[in-house]
Amino acid sequence: MVRYFEDVTVGETHDLGAYTADREELLEFARRYDPQPIHVDPDAAERTMFGGLIASGWHTGGSCMALLAKGFLNDTVAVGSFGMDELRWPTPVRPGDTVAAAVEIAGKHPSESRDDRGYVDIELHAENDEGEEVIFWVSTNILLTRAGSDAWPFEE
Amino acid sequence: MVRYFEDVTVGETHDLGAYTADREELLEFARRYDPQPIHVDPDAAERTMFGGLIASGWHTGGSCMALLAKGFLNDTVAVGSFGMDELRWPTPVRPGDTVAAAVEIAGKHPSESRDDRGYVDIELHAENDEGEEVIFWVSTNILLTRAGSDAWPFEE
Repeated sequence: MVRYFEDVTVGETHDLGAYTADREELLEFARRYDPQPIHVDPDAAERTMFGGLIASGWHTGGSCMALLAKGFLNDTVAVGSFGMDELRWPTPVRPGDTVAAAVEIAGKHPSESRDDRGYVDIELHAENDEGEEVIFWVSTNILLTRAGSDAWPFEE
Repeated sequence: MVRYFEDVTVGETHDLGAYTADREELLEFARRYDPQPIHVDPDAAERTMFGGLIASGWHTGGSCMALLAKGFLNDTVAVGSFGMDELRWPTPVRPGDTVAAAVEIAGKHPSESRDDRGYVDIELHAENDEGEEVIFWVSTNILLTRAGSDAWPFEE
């Protein structure tokens, strides 16, 4: 059974599991989506303040997004996001790092104009093997209400 | 010649060119980094409020990031970003859309503790063929100063 807006409670948390940053995947992603030298040139990256190749923040974000989809959103009738009020990369992800993520529902707000949806504030945090935070974000996601269940064509 | 923190001026703008959203690429990206039904299930997506498949916001962000790297950052001594204060996806990107991006330098701030770097506020906007805004963000990026040029190992 999928969860509707009504079923989500402020304060609930979910461990989202982890992924390991594969060096070849980091390079492949960066060549296509973030071709800055610190992400695509391992030799030169060693001589920067970072001391080696680091992941594109967009790769870290996408990888945590996959964990968020599989570990929370895909159990709900989430239909997208307006965006984020905050997105931070406090510590770079490096090849071989394992990144574990968790999510908390920080708030929920019924739509003022429509009874078929509501808005949920999501806080995602992820850390590396050393317990250092590598990313966090605060996003607003749209969830359907039971009154809007006709707008959910996917399998439940 | 790469540009240092001193060389970037508040208010300068750069057209970053455009990319076209390829349907297979959208699906491939979403399966790996954002496997929500509206991004990976075209048939069901047709019956949602979106009326069809839409791009993952992370794909839109990464694609615009590539334009930003190639059209601005890689001409500077940019060495990463702390994150974003705002990230919005006002209109979804759909397969076949062409997305054009532009960037404005909204502010710059010398580091208070170090003379080798400064911080630049970047505003990125991108729109589709219809002139609808598909993404915008406000990020803080780190640029080296000339005093920090030893920390730049890449080719100039």
